[in-house]
Amino acid sequence: MIRPLGDRVVVKPAAKEEVTKSGIVLPDTAKEKPQKGEVVAVGSGRLLETGQRVPMDLKVGDEILFSKYAGNEIKIDDVEYLILREMDILGVIE
Amino acid sequence: MIRPLGDRVVVKPAAKEEVTKSGIVLPDTAKEKPQKGEVVAVGSGRLLETGQRVPMDLKVGDEILFSKYAGNEIKIDDVEYLILREMDILGVIE
Amino acid sequence: MIRPLGDRVVVKPAAKEEVTKSGIVLPDTAKEKPQKGEVVAVGSGRLLETGQRVPMDLKVGDEILFSKYAGNEIKIDDVEYLILREMDILGVIE
Amino acid sequence: MIRPLGDRVVVKPAAKEEVTKSGIVLPDTAKEKPQKGEVVAVGSGRLLETGQRVPMDLKVGDEILFSKYAGNEIKIDDVEYLILREMDILGVIE
Amino acid sequence: MIRPLGDRVVVKPAAKEEVTKSGIVLPDTAKEKPQKGEVVAVGSGRLLETGQRVPMDLKVGDEILFSKYAGNEIKIDDVEYLILREMDILGVIE
Amino acid sequence: MIRPLGDRVVVKPAAKEEVTKSGIVLPDTAKEKPQKGEVVAVGSGRLLETGQRVPMDLKVGDEILFSKYAGNEIKIDDVEYLILREMDILGVIE
Amino acid sequence: MIRPLGDRVVVKPAAKEEVTKSGIVLPDTAKEKPQKGEVVAVGSGRLLETGQRVPMDLKVGDEILFSKYAGNEIKIDDVEYLILREMDILGVIE
Repeated sequence: MIRPLGDRVVVKPAAKEEVTKSGIVLPDTAKEKPQKGEVVAVGSGRLLETGQRVPMDLKVGDEILFSKYAGNEIKIDDVEYLILREMDILGVIE
Repeated sequence: MIRPLGDRVVVKPAAKEEVTKSGIVLPDTAKEKPQKGEVVAVGSGRLLETGQRVPMDLKVGDEILFSKYAGNEIKIDDVEYLILREMDILGVIE
Repeated sequence: MIRPLGDRVVVKPAAKEEVTKSGIVLPDTAKEKPQKGEVVAVGSGRLLETGQRVPMDLKVGDEILFSKYAGNEIKIDDVEYLILREMDILGVIE
Repeated sequence: MIRPLGDRVVVKPAAKEEVTKSGIVLPDTAKEKPQKGEVVAVGSGRLLETGQRVPMDLKVGDEILFSKYAGNEIKIDDVEYLILREMDILGVIE
Repeated sequence: MIRPLGDRVVVKPAAKEEVTKSGIVLPDTAKEKPQKGEVVAVGSGRLLETGQRVPMDLKVGDEILFSKYAGNEIKIDDVEYLILREMDILGVIE
Repeated sequence: MIRPLGDRVVVKPAAKEEVTKSGIVLPDTAKEKPQKGEVVAVGSGRLLETGQRVPMDLKVGDEILFSKYAGNEIKIDDVEYLILREMDILGVIE
Repeated sequence: MIRPLGDRVVVKPAAKEEVTKSGIVLPDTAKEKPQKGEVVAVGSGRLLETGQRVPMDLKVGDEILFSKYAGNEIKIDDVEYLILREMDILGVIE
């Protein structure tokens, strides 16, 4: 598995046609559309200039929305993942 | 529902021809025009470099004005929403 | 009315041909020319990285000069206003 | 008169052919040439992130040199002035 | 050997067709793909504005993923290495 | 004379063919070449965000090297000078 | 000799075909290639916003690798040198 550094998370993106259990779908419009996924690993958090480390506001298992063009792709055992920064994550589906 | 991260809010944009109860309409001119909407969820607030979290200056139910090109669109149960950052919000209609 | 967020103010721009009581007119030259207006609402002020909020150096009723291309337009009860940031305001006419 | 905000000053630019009493003239070369002027009003100073206000290093009556393309023009009672930021001012002629 | 300065590390990149023992392979898609490598030397860490040095979150022997276009190449005794900054490293394969 | 503001200095550039007493000449190559000069006035120093003023690491009479394209030209009593920022000064010839 | 200011160093670049005693040579590839050199003078170090000066992590005599396009050239007694900033230096050959 991957241990992400700093404020990064590893995310398993949802298939594009998937509908969440809360009924959220993503519109097809001119504005930037977020994508859904599930957090599978979280980093130790962002380091402030004071030397303080900020705990991540996300945990493994969270279903999230993130900016469509963010992140780096990686494939583990034939499954595709993304490595994202916390700032690229818009919200958690609850 | 969506729990927005950091200084983000979830906003239900007003229909474009809508007129608020305070009689505010938006002009059609050359300058950037703000759009109206209602706050439906607020994040935990911006984190300062001191490690202090700043409470949002907005609450659920606030009728707001925001920059037209800001934010990410999302659709929940067939209703369109926007995820915005507090800095993209110009003011609250009171 | 609008409650502007942070270091923003709501300004009623002066009509372009208007001359202030102090006799100030704005030249038509190559450099960026400021515009005049009157402050009708002020935000709670800029938030410093220390968490301290800086009181606005402006009050309702101030006649101000601001950068011509700054701000967002809005119309309330058929009157046009601008939402500006304090940094876009050059000075107060006294 | 204008009360400039923050670290701004109001400056009366010298006529271009003017020679100062200290005999300073400005060369006509490829590099950016500064312009001369006299300070007629000063702001309350720059605000640091600590919340401390820094007193201006300029006073009314100072004869200064400033970057040629800096500032906003304004005309008061038919006299042209510039509103400049302290950072655009190179030095004081003494 | 090289002692990297600050938050830099020296990395021996994996051969492109290599598969890690954890079965991670890198997809060939439109998004930016990370590359794998092994840390062979680490710097003393990033210096914060407070003067505090942050220990590196990496150690010699770590198998890492890094941004494909990051870093400077160097060859030591006919082996190619990269000098990277910690911010260019996405995660550690564990 | 000019009193430079902040971290600025007034410099009398050396004539281009001049050779310093330490035998330093400037090569004519593709990279940016520094220029020589003598410090004739120094500002009060850079102001840190803490409100602390940093004394200049230069004094009147220092023979310096500076970036070729830096600064603003000025002529005092028919002699050409440059107003530079401390960051544009590479080193002192000793 | 030159006393470099701040976090700068004076470096004597190695001849391009030179091989270090540790057998390091520089590959000819598409990525940015670092260059080798020897430190001949070091500045007093970078100044933090706290007013604290950070001692240089380099000393006279260090054999270093630096970014190829960094720095300003200078010739002292017919020998070419570079003035570099510490951030342009990748590592020390040990």
